Amino acid sequence: MKKTTVLSAALLASALAMPAAAQMSVEDQIETRQSAYQFAAWNMGKIKAQAVDEEVEYDEKQIAAAANAIAAVANSGMGTLYSRDSANDRADDTRLKPNFFDELDKVQEIAVSFAQESSKLQEIAASGDKAAVARQFAKVGETCKNCHDNFRAE
Amino acid sequence: MKKTTVLSAALLASALAMPAAAQMSVEDQIETRQSAYQFAAWNMGKIKAQAVDEEVEYDEKQIAAAANAIAAVANSGMGTLYSRDSANDRADDTRLKPNFFDELDKVQEIAVSFAQESSKLQEIAASGDKAAVARQFAKVGETCKNCHDNFRAE
Ligand code: HEC
Ligand code: HEC
Repeated sequence: MKKTTVLSAALLASALAMPAAAQMSVEDQIETRQSAYQFAAWNMGKIKAQAVDEEVEYDEKQIAAAANAIAAVANSGMGTLYSRDSANDRADDTRLKPNFFDELDKVQEIAVSFAQESSKLQEIAASGDKAAVARQFAKVGETCKNCHDNFRAE
Repeated sequence: MKKTTVLSAALLASALAMPAAAQMSVEDQIETRQSAYQFAAWNMGKIKAQAVDEEVEYDEKQIAAAANAIAAVANSGMGTLYSRDSANDRADDTRLKPNFFDELDKVQEIAVSFAQESSKLQEIAASGDKAAVARQFAKVGETCKNCHDNFRAE
């Protein structure tokens, strides 16, 4: 158990070190991660409106597309957008707290559940069962909240 | 031919009128569409770095995830983020040109090719043929450019 956790943190650390694209500036990292989350939040909002609050008519295709979008964010390898210098003790216009880099095990755990719960949401959305979508939406929302409670400043 | 085009524009117009979520403010529409495109651009950048410029080692999983992300943006129903009041003759902090709303046929045509070319990129990325990915990346890039040349201010 201990070993896996340590390994996961090591993997994350190496993901942080090996960029998928050319090295990005701290400003670009911040803007890009904020964009990714905002795109996810817009799509969460559609599912909330249609499956949870039921204030907009349920549209299976829109819900499936929204779930695809959230899963695409969760699986996009956002670790490369987090360099130590991009936390709010060193950079402007960001709410990332520096403890993120002291708790990479926890970060990894939350990132993995975000990916798993959104992949599940994607499957359920494809089947079109509104109540099941609403339940799984809540699970995804918990992973967002868990990360924000730990690593995002007010 | 004429009929289909007119119908498509009508469909787009109705998509603009019928939100997938609760009505958004003009500011939220602008921020959200900019976020979606920026998230797409980040993922295009990864494919460019790995499959076109070859400055970063090709990683099939990262490329597949990036292609999923671009397709998710293209299929996310961004039409609802474009209200007439959100063009740059009426709103701040946006580069959307008002002619967008006079040329809905062309908008629709570009939006459809963006969706089709990115879905193709998604398929090709899953198979992992680097040269084919590079070719299809260029096709997707043309749809981005086509939209910007017509509807995005400098
Ligand atoms: C692994 C951690 C993590 C997960 C998971 C996560 N977030 Fe966040 N989120 C953050 C951090 C950190 C920030 C602050 C980013 C910054 O300001 O640089 C943030 C910022 C945001 C913002 C503000 C973006 C902006 O424009 O400033 C929104 C909205 C948001 N998250 C929504 C979500 C939603 C919705 C989900 C789940 C579907 C989610 N987040 C999942 C860590 C996370
Ligand atoms: C259907 C039209 C359309 C398509 C397709 C399109 N764009 Fe755009 N893009 C726009 C418009 C309009 C804006 C200006 C949005 C604004 O400022 O409100 C924009 C803005 C942007 C921005 C700046 C965002 C910001 O933060 O201000 C980037 C980057 C971008 N697009 C990249 C892309 C990429 C990459 C693709 C394809 C993978 C793409 N776009 C496809 C119309 C499009």
